[in-house]
Amino acid sequence: MKKISVLGASGSVGVQTLDVIRLHPEHFQLVAFSVGSNIEFAVQAAREFLPQLISVQKEEDAKRLRVMLGNVKVVWGEEGLLEVALHTAADVVVNAVVGSVGLMPTLSAIEARKTIAIANKETLVTAGHLVMEAACKYGVDLLPVDSEHSAIFQCLNGEKREQISRLILTASGGSFRDKTREELTHVTVEDALKHPNWSMGSKITIDSATMMNKGLEVIEAHWLFNIPYDQIDVLLHKESIVHSLVEFGDRSVIAQLGTPDMRVPIQYALTYPTRLPLQATKQLQLWEIGALHFQQMDFGRFRCLQFAYEAGRTGGSLPAVMNAANEAAVAAFLQGKIGFLTIEELIEKAMHHHSVISHPNLDEIREIDWATRRYVMEQI
Amino acid sequence: MKKISVLGASGSVGVQTLDVIRLHPEHFQLVAFSVGSNIEFAVQAAREFLPQLISVQKEEDAKRLRVMLGNVKVVWGEEGLLEVALHTAADVVVNAVVGSVGLMPTLSAIEARKTIAIANKETLVTAGHLVMEAACKYGVDLLPVDSEHSAIFQCLNGEKREQISRLILTASGGSFRDKTREELTHVTVEDALKHPNWSMGSKITIDSATMMNKGLEVIEAHWLFNIPYDQIDVLLHKESIVHSLVEFGDRSVIAQLGTPDMRVPIQYALTYPTRLPLQATKQLQLWEIGALHFQQMDFGRFRCLQFAYEAGRTGGSLPAVMNAANEAAVAAFLQGKIGFLTIEELIEKAMHHHSVISHPNLDEIREIDWATRRYVMEQI
Repeated sequence: MKKISVLGASGSVGVQTLDVIRLHPEHFQLVAFSVGSNIEFAVQAAREFLPQLISVQKEEDAKRLRVMLGNVKVVWGEEGLLEVALHTAADVVVNAVVGSVGLMPTLSAIEARKTIAIANKETLVTAGHLVMEAACKYGVDLLPVDSEHSAIFQCLNGEKREQISRLILTASGGSFRDKTREELTHVTVEDALKHPNWSMGSKITIDSATMMNKGLEVIEAHWLFNIPYDQIDVLLHKESIVHSLVEFGDRSVIAQLGTPDMRVPIQYALTYPTRLPLQATKQLQLWEIGALHFQQMDFGRFRCLQFAYEAGRTGGSLPAVMNAANEAAVAAFLQGKIGFLTIEELIEKAMHHHSVISHPNLDEIREIDWATRRYVMEQI
Repeated sequence: MKKISVLGASGSVGVQTLDVIRLHPEHFQLVAFSVGSNIEFAVQAAREFLPQLISVQKEEDAKRLRVMLGNVKVVWGEEGLLEVALHTAADVVVNAVVGSVGLMPTLSAIEARKTIAIANKETLVTAGHLVMEAACKYGVDLLPVDSEHSAIFQCLNGEKREQISRLILTASGGSFRDKTREELTHVTVEDALKHPNWSMGSKITIDSATMMNKGLEVIEAHWLFNIPYDQIDVLLHKESIVHSLVEFGDRSVIAQLGTPDMRVPIQYALTYPTRLPLQATKQLQLWEIGALHFQQMDFGRFRCLQFAYEAGRTGGSLPAVMNAANEAAVAAFLQGKIGFLTIEELIEKAMHHHSVISHPNLDEIREIDWATRRYVMEQI
């Protein structure tokens, strides 16, 4: 029986993680989870899974929940989140919170020698150097949950890292893949939220449309698999069936495929190095799909991807700046304050405005994160 | 340094095996090889690779070769072939002979505890039960060389066999994939020999056009990976880029891809469980190809594939009958004695005419092989 803590249980990845746990009651047990402010969800999940610990964002929600649930420990805030990540009973911590709030719990759980299933992009993007250093120091496995990184991780099964010649991340192209830059000027929030293949949260759906999502994944892949940026490619693949590929020195390419269903990579992170049946997922029949299409990435069309390579190659504090600028700009777009193309303009401005620190510590990363958000807000 | 014997060095797979050895003189050494009657090839290869032993088909060729080469031991006939397979210096035996003559050397080399890189289809098709029994008894690795089986083998790297839910062999469809059965009535030998993706020997090119090649591969896959026929699928994929796929119980599908180049799977068999660079092969760029197409297999259109599943499921001596009937019928077609669709008619007749023996020994397989060939010849 694997005991699991889930950070961000009411988000898209969190909900699907709970579904995987639900499908395998003989293998998995949810011992602790956190939500933001979705108290209804927390109550239902608590009644179904009987965890020992729950954390919510606000103190008043914690108080309400204590009254409603009685015998479950309920905590709150960033400290509460840490308590869920460090819960003694947990073997695996699934970090599925959105945003840079996910960083501290990852680092603490690593120090507590928990296995980490990582869905929080900001952890590796903003502090990959600190996280991988800690994972190495404490001998902790960092298992990818993202479909692309899980695909690469699965393709590397039984292979030697030094024989990798290229990682190839596939990208659906998001909601606007067929639009020109001119057509992008007047797209609405509503248009942007219609992702063709995956049903996800709104931040990540916008990031898919700007291709920043793939940019963040490139940086994550760099850290997770210890591969230089020159050996990481992005390939447009509109059907989202080939989740990513690895090329080896002998030109052999291994790919992982499947119908788009996040439960597959989530479950793989929970079962690794083995697998469990997952019959709830639709079987892939390639003849039903008929054709898989691939297109070269256009860095001029998708400028955010270019920014990510630049930030990754420069390293230091620049990825944290890019990430914070992107979060602030996407939030402004979702609130209707800026146009779609202004997102990338703001990111570019913030990156140029910043003086790079080469090996920032945690405090510096936090400071840079806030300074960048303030800067972006001032530009709007 | 891995020391290698090659049976069938002048055939398509043999020539490419020698090329792989040539590309890695620091890793591989050719210590012995056999050819049929291509003496010119034998002389060149002997001068280039300086092997210790060569075998040819006929005694007079052996005598000529001895005069021409001087200090190399030259043997001949089926015994000569066995001597190459059993050469003391060899660690790996690449069995790339065509036809049922490949069976005995495989079995003998297994008993001598050599690693076998198997490209000879007939070995597993006609005597899979004996070969796998022997491989198990002597603890010998049987490594696939065929691109499809190598793909599956690579996809299974680091995975557990009991978690396989399906093997999916891809098939290009051969030279006649877009023709209806009516159009097949009058196709010529010349048409049949034009394979769209792979340059191979004439027997295997015809087998690709009839889909018998895929049928033989299904039976081989059954034995190599110990998977029931119900869990082996065939998928039409005209580009021959996805070489085959494996589906696991969690619906995750792992595939191996590459530009069509037999040197990749040959080299993998020689380097397994590791890899070596192979820069002579063209790098796969999926965006250059643009689209990969997949189609459901039509068993009515490709009757030979249906025969293979029937023969495989029935087992015993029936696959040997099917194989011998196919060899005889393809030879007759190549000689212009019968039409293309008569190949499958003759195979069907021979299979119906035969009374199945459930666990044939080597002598019985040989006898059935000859009796079937005689029977097919009588029907023409």
